[in-house]
Amino acid sequence: MFRQNLSSTLLQNVVDELSSLPGVGKKSALRFALYLLKQPRENVERFGNAVVKMRNEIHYCKICNMVSDSDLCTVCSSGLRDHSLVCVVESVRDVLSIENTGQYNGVYHVLGGIISPMDGVGPGDLSIEHLISRVSQGEVKEIFMALSTTMEGETTAFFLYKKLSPFKVNISTIARGVGFGDDLEYTDEVTLGRSIKNRQPFVPLNT
Amino acid sequence: MFRQNLSSTLLQNVVDELSSLPGVGKKSALRFALYLLKQPRENVERFGNAVVKMRNEIHYCKICNMVSDSDLCTVCSSGLRDHSLVCVVESVRDVLSIENTGQYNGVYHVLGGIISPMDGVGPGDLSIEHLISRVSQGEVKEIFMALSTTMEGETTAFFLYKKLSPFKVNISTIARGVGFGDDLEYTDEVTLGRSIKNRQPFVPLNT
Repeated sequence: MFRQNLSSTLLQNVVDELSSLPGVGKKSALRFALYLLKQPRENVERFGNAVVKMRNEIHYCKICNMVSDSDLCTVCSSGLRDHSLVCVVESVRDVLSIENTGQYNGVYHVLGGIISPMDGVGPGDLSIEHLISRVSQGEVKEIFMALSTTMEGETTAFFLYKKLSPFKVNISTIARGVGFGDDLEYTDEVTLGRSIKNRQPFVPLNT
Repeated sequence: MFRQNLSSTLLQNVVDELSSLPGVGKKSALRFALYLLKQPRENVERFGNAVVKMRNEIHYCKICNMVSDSDLCTVCSSGLRDHSLVCVVESVRDVLSIENTGQYNGVYHVLGGIISPMDGVGPGDLSIEHLISRVSQGEVKEIFMALSTTMEGETTAFFLYKKLSPFKVNISTIARGVGFGDDLEYTDEVTLGRSIKNRQPFVPLNT
């Protein structure tokens, strides 16, 4: 138990707020708060204001639900991207991860979660209808599902597959296989089994 | 390298601010920022405002330099504490650690750092003169040094010992039991509590 008199309610409030962040306990929160106390006032004001401003002024892209500074995100408004290829992901973070690879030139659709009956998340809680209506407009040629390889991810992928099959659209999924740098010995049997079945032509890395 | 286009400058600013916290990298900062985005507006406003309010309105106790909501901290203004016994610590966090043990009934003096030539921190950067003037008023009977058992802590203790020796004041130090090289902050409560009870006359390392 780490509940103590912090000698200042101002400090106590900040510790309480900071320890609400995911993975941050009271000790780390206290460390952050004392760090902030030592910073110049204008820095701390910039810190606090940036957080509030972000929450109040952020937009979500009308097309793909990605966080954005305006009604259209940079990807959806770009003429250089392939708008007929839509990558379906669970969250904003996945978009950032994929963008970070520099390997993808299509656009996105952020579901805003994943089907998880255990957590009470059903299809109606996700932006699936929105995706269907995007596809029904006829310009999307391929739906590329980049969902986690968990039970929930597979369930969501299957649900989307069923919903999208009436439309003339190719449905692909992110390649399953042994991760780069992974030891074969420690790869689980399902992954290894699938990687053997779905073996691919060898392409050297540098070409 | 984890520097990427976050698709929103509002989000980017918050990630930059959060990653300035000690031990928080860009990935954790992004996780915190996306978490905050999902919270109700009023919660995020309370979060941001608490931080700014703390920085702008916090007081430091005029007697001991502890963080406080007013000019006198709760310890220094308490009639139940022994004001003739002064515990000298490096930082606010150490006061909180010691208070947490419930073993100490005296008052404090926060140095605001520790003598560390490597980091460019000399005696002039700490509130040592303030401590001397407290002692020179004649009401302090014992100075109890609870400094980390590091090289810097020992150096600071020795410096204080020299400075305080002209005064009629007992100088004690936290009992060994705290392992040499251990940081006070990470010491468990039992060890720390015992070390306070069994405080010993200060004997400089070199004599």
